[in-house]
Amino acid sequence: MSDFPKAVTINEEGPREGFQIEPGPIPTSRKIDLIDALASTGLRQIQTVSFVPPANVPGMADADAVVAGIERRPGVSYTALWLNERGLLRALASRKLDVFGTIGLCPSPGFLMRNQKRTPEQNHEAQRKILQMYRNNDVPVRRGGLMAAFGCNFEGDIPVSRVVDMVGQLLALAQEAETALDYVSLADTMAWATPASIQRVVGEVRNRYPDLRLSLHLHDTRGMGIANAYAGLQMGVDMFDAAVAGLGGCPFAGHRGAAGNVCTEDLVFLCDEMGIHTGIDLDRLIEAAALAEDIVGHPLPGSVKTGGTLRKYRQARREAA
Amino acid sequence: MSDFPKAVTINEEGPREGFQIEPGPIPTSRKIDLIDALASTGLRQIQTVSFVPPANVPGMADADAVVAGIERRPGVSYTALWLNERGLLRALASRKLDVFGTIGLCPSPGFLMRNQKRTPEQNHEAQRKILQMYRNNDVPVRRGGLMAAFGCNFEGDIPVSRVVDMVGQLLALAQEAETALDYVSLADTMAWATPASIQRVVGEVRNRYPDLRLSLHLHDTRGMGIANAYAGLQMGVDMFDAAVAGLGGCPFAGHRGAAGNVCTEDLVFLCDEMGIHTGIDLDRLIEAAALAEDIVGHPLPGSVKTGGTLRKYRQARREAA
Repeated sequence: MSDFPKAVTINEEGPREGFQIEPGPIPTSRKIDLIDALASTGLRQIQTVSFVPPANVPGMADADAVVAGIERRPGVSYTALWLNERGLLRALASRKLDVFGTIGLCPSPGFLMRNQKRTPEQNHEAQRKILQMYRNNDVPVRRGGLMAAFGCNFEGDIPVSRVVDMVGQLLALAQEAETALDYVSLADTMAWATPASIQRVVGEVRNRYPDLRLSLHLHDTRGMGIANAYAGLQMGVDMFDAAVAGLGGCPFAGHRGAAGNVCTEDLVFLCDEMGIHTGIDLDRLIEAAALAEDIVGHPLPGSVKTGGTLRKYRQARREAA
Repeated sequence: MSDFPKAVTINEEGPREGFQIEPGPIPTSRKIDLIDALASTGLRQIQTVSFVPPANVPGMADADAVVAGIERRPGVSYTALWLNERGLLRALASRKLDVFGTIGLCPSPGFLMRNQKRTPEQNHEAQRKILQMYRNNDVPVRRGGLMAAFGCNFEGDIPVSRVVDMVGQLLALAQEAETALDYVSLADTMAWATPASIQRVVGEVRNRYPDLRLSLHLHDTRGMGIANAYAGLQMGVDMFDAAVAGLGGCPFAGHRGAAGNVCTEDLVFLCDEMGIHTGIDLDRLIEAAALAEDIVGHPLPGSVKTGGTLRKYRQARREAA
């Protein structure tokens, strides 16, 4: 009936997502507090900041100071985002980040034009230049990403065959640059996925590229996030992006205030209960979720931080026995 | 890989759940508005009120007036809850409700004692008396229910074999009273279920009673509600309780304000996207969810009412083509 992985890797994107989208100014020290708290949970990969022009994203103006202030924990990979060489150089200059390259394509030309002002051909060329930039800076390329892989507000449903083709194009771009991707991330950028489409798309990509590691980036805007993660787990997917407490929101939803990324602690709860190893201490992660909520100053969408875990009930039961 | 049903029946419990748990007094006319709005969506079963002593549940003091005010729609089954013959007689006196009997057992003796102050033996006897009460009042018995079928705050994990046995006990009680149950509802009363336990429990019950129709009552307190519904659908379950906008809350969660019942419009969105017929107009249902939120005066937990459906994007795409 299923092909569940024994263990999953969760890439925590809450700090970057949250600091980027939250309207209020968040003190640098509190950003550092959250990243340090997350690093103490057992998470092995944390996306900390975006190195983007402060004029575009005021909440990231202190990105260098945030990274400088992190108390690095061994075994944790601290990552960041950037959009150009200037940003990449800031990441490299920090000397505290795990700097690796990403290339990205998009099966929705409409979204690509709105989001990045490029045609598919222009985007292909841009990825070649990005690969060259990584080569020039001696940065390994690890990740390929497909945005809007499950549907798009501007293009509607995306044919699965196009997604499969584009995974092939990512692999070909990497090969052309004499490198190889560690994994390909399929992003449900605008929350179109359901468990059925997760199964369909992951299944078709897997059929064509059986040895390729896949990662899922899921949005919970329509409440399908955990169900979609479950469908991914059923297909053997062992790598997920997630955001503590559901930090981040979704700029493409019908309404402001809609949930964004699938919530890390809800995903860890699911894995824990299914016996899938995450390496993460759920109680500590819930403390980090409470901290995130305190920092942003408003309720965040995650469920387990409010509903509680089952641990105390099981423990009380064992003690009574 | 799966055994999805072609169509599902959703039993809307939002009005009863919401009016019962919301602290503020809700005007009778607004309760009626919500029930009438729900009846216009294509929902075929709506649980309207509880006939319980006003001293116990002040929000249900106007239950008779609410039912009297409903504008009945053909094809919609309006139901209610009661705890004793006095309540049943109120339901019968309304002459507007679809009155049918329910019996219930609980595989957690600890929860049974806390919730109903009965031992399992006493509860068995109580069900016999309830069956007799229905017989005396010429009321057909349709539904058997198991509370806490997936785990319990007071007993911890519940052995699947005990759930299977207890389903058998429900069937035997009905048979003993010379009646038969139309279906058995498995309730995740305290939100312990995950998709894995849904598959396990539903699978074992189905193995033992392959012809028995099963219904799921799922709580979303830990964010697993839709994933659990999906797991149920994968097992062929074709009947679900749900609450519009996620009305209801969960009195057993670790924190006040935790989500309760799985949200109707999120469940309908899931089914729509998977091609499973519900007979429900999702846009109208979202309007009813907005009305529910307006009536209670605070945000309710459902996602699709905030995130929006995909219909307008698909339509824009068709018009552009």
